[in-house]
Amino acid sequence: MGARVIGKGRIEAFSDGVIAIIITIMVLELKVPHGTGFADLLPTVPVLLGYLLSFAYVGIYWNNHHHLFQAAHGVTGPILWANLHLLFWMSLIPFVTSWIGEAGDAVAPVASYGFILLLTAAAYRLLATMLARHDGPGSPLAVALSGDRKGRTSLILYAAGIGVSFLSPALGLASYVAVALMWFMPDRRVERVLLRD
Amino acid sequence: MGARVIGKGRIEAFSDGVIAIIITIMVLELKVPHGTGFADLLPTVPVLLGYLLSFAYVGIYWNNHHHLFQAAHGVTGPILWANLHLLFWMSLIPFVTSWIGEAGDAVAPVASYGFILLLTAAAYRLLATMLARHDGPGSPLAVALSGDRKGRTSLILYAAGIGVSFLSPALGLASYVAVALMWFMPDRRVERVLLRD
Amino acid sequence: MGARVIGKGRIEAFSDGVIAIIITIMVLELKVPHGTGFADLLPTVPVLLGYLLSFAYVGIYWNNHHHLFQAAHGVTGPILWANLHLLFWMSLIPFVTSWIGEAGDAVAPVASYGFILLLTAAAYRLLATMLARHDGPGSPLAVALSGDRKGRTSLILYAAGIGVSFLSPALGLASYVAVALMWFMPDRRVERVLLRD
Amino acid sequence: MGARVIGKGRIEAFSDGVIAIIITIMVLELKVPHGTGFADLLPTVPVLLGYLLSFAYVGIYWNNHHHLFQAAHGVTGPILWANLHLLFWMSLIPFVTSWIGEAGDAVAPVASYGFILLLTAAAYRLLATMLARHDGPGSPLAVALSGDRKGRTSLILYAAGIGVSFLSPALGLASYVAVALMWFMPDRRVERVLLRD
Repeated sequence: MGARVIGKGRIEAFSDGVIAIIITIMVLELKVPHGTGFADLLPTVPVLLGYLLSFAYVGIYWNNHHHLFQAAHGVTGPILWANLHLLFWMSLIPFVTSWIGEAGDAVAPVASYGFILLLTAAAYRLLATMLARHDGPGSPLAVALSGDRKGRTSLILYAAGIGVSFLSPALGLASYVAVALMWFMPDRRVERVLLRD
Repeated sequence: MGARVIGKGRIEAFSDGVIAIIITIMVLELKVPHGTGFADLLPTVPVLLGYLLSFAYVGIYWNNHHHLFQAAHGVTGPILWANLHLLFWMSLIPFVTSWIGEAGDAVAPVASYGFILLLTAAAYRLLATMLARHDGPGSPLAVALSGDRKGRTSLILYAAGIGVSFLSPALGLASYVAVALMWFMPDRRVERVLLRD
Repeated sequence: MGARVIGKGRIEAFSDGVIAIIITIMVLELKVPHGTGFADLLPTVPVLLGYLLSFAYVGIYWNNHHHLFQAAHGVTGPILWANLHLLFWMSLIPFVTSWIGEAGDAVAPVASYGFILLLTAAAYRLLATMLARHDGPGSPLAVALSGDRKGRTSLILYAAGIGVSFLSPALGLASYVAVALMWFMPDRRVERVLLRD
Repeated sequence: MGARVIGKGRIEAFSDGVIAIIITIMVLELKVPHGTGFADLLPTVPVLLGYLLSFAYVGIYWNNHHHLFQAAHGVTGPILWANLHLLFWMSLIPFVTSWIGEAGDAVAPVASYGFILLLTAAAYRLLATMLARHDGPGSPLAVALSGDRKGRTSLILYAAGIGVSFLSPALGLASYVAVALMWFMPDRRVERVLLRD
């Protein structure tokens, strides 16, 4: 590895910048209420709840991204692309969040939201797999991710949520929320293995 | 502590990114005047004053955040979340700022502004407490924050400001401004204790 | 060189910030669908494709910029300006992307898009040349860029695409896509030469 | 100095973030042309020229800010505030730029533009003075800035430009452009003194 390894610093800094913007521009969707009374805040409530959920998602990704790159030994050209690929899907989260915020829990917005979350999760898994493969079998990252039950469960729950949303959008949303709650803490497995060093 | 400590660098960089965006997107609310005369600037004045006040608030938080993490020895998973929690409430400051800017000093916008400031302040206190607890009793951070009168006064003044705004929105705003003036300088206690090292 | 060299860190950090914003604000152009059905997503499709193409371009530039500065030994005042010059043209990519997204494959938007891509590519080449000249003949960067066939081909393909777009905008777009595909991987020549160290 | 000095890294990173956003959000003012022909670009031309001028200004400030902090030995609490004060005025540049872009060379927009440029320049001078004072007399920064003719000339030219704009807005703009051209290169005096080390 040694000499071939590209520094992690700048890919982390760039990702931080993009994720910081993604998490913050969603607040631009919170339109200023048209009146001056508390009741004028009511139409903002669903948009605000959508913002809260998406803020949590993007926060989870930043958190896991942070842990992932801390454990990784180095990046290569293809890993740079896998990271950009993740950022691309993540950057569409504000778009589908706005749609849910405006259209409410209709089938198309909820299914589309799940679709973007599913592709973001898949892109994250691809990135993690490439980083683990680059570090080699037996590396802390490879060990930590070998039994990645949480990652697989997420993909299944997102896919299920998309399907369910055609029957009941509210139930679809509920399964997305379940994934968020499951991921709410950083990847203990990675931390546990890192501790052995 | 040693090995368990997660590097502070990336959480600082990400926070810097989010705070930089929060402080800057508020300027997007300054709508271009519709005419070409100086009088056309008049409707912008309250929005500009709101921007100035919120810029000062966010600047104060960045400043204190800077001092806080400089004094802290390390971060843990829960501290990452406490930091994101702070950023969430802070990211709503542009929203309530815009409302005040457009609706003027009516009850609901002024009370809502105070509510977001109160929750941001509470989130900051929670983060500071967690960092101090992690560094352990007797650490510079714990000592510096032990007699945190300024933090408690802020929470009281914000709560009072919210209450007062139902009687007089202008008076409510005045108590928020008082907090800003009080926090205008970085936390001397932290600096003082750091100097002893 | 030694003492005269200005640190690369801050020019990289600033460029990362600007590129992160450029790549992300394009998503603000994805207007929320007006209805609640899947069919309401249809008008978004061309805008989304435009976003995808421009995301790829900006991602390519970030990637190459990353490799370029990693290979470079230092920057000077004029190099700071050459970098800002590159960022200026790159910052216009969201503007022409939006125009294509809204106006479709008409002559003027497609030719303008190619024009901005051409000037961005020329600015990148200028920056690379200045960095290579600063490092001196025989430096890894100078060697790597000496036979820069890919750079020259890009300029030719962009210019050709602009011309072709007057006959067939779709064909013009195709030649831009060809450049994107060609640049999709980081500059192997630079990596190859760096390996020799 | 030694122990009292606060690290420069994070104030630079935060400033980079804010300046990167300021320089980039101006491009959001470039509204997508309503038609599909080249003629539809015409109304964009003055906005584009305004963007170019303001991009150059903000680029100049970033460049000089970069040199200033590279030469400085450390920052204190008041210097953090002086830096935020500079960023506040700089953040209003997009606002006045948009006004000029929409209203053209009328008296009020041109005078307001000059007013913001004047206050930004004064804030920069204040920051530079505080940094030089902190480093102490005889420090490279203090020596470099002692005969700061360019800074004083700028202030005079901005003030003159504001006055002149009441007679001829075009002439007012011309004097602002003159300042931009004068500052176009980084502060040679600072570089010259740094070389002596």
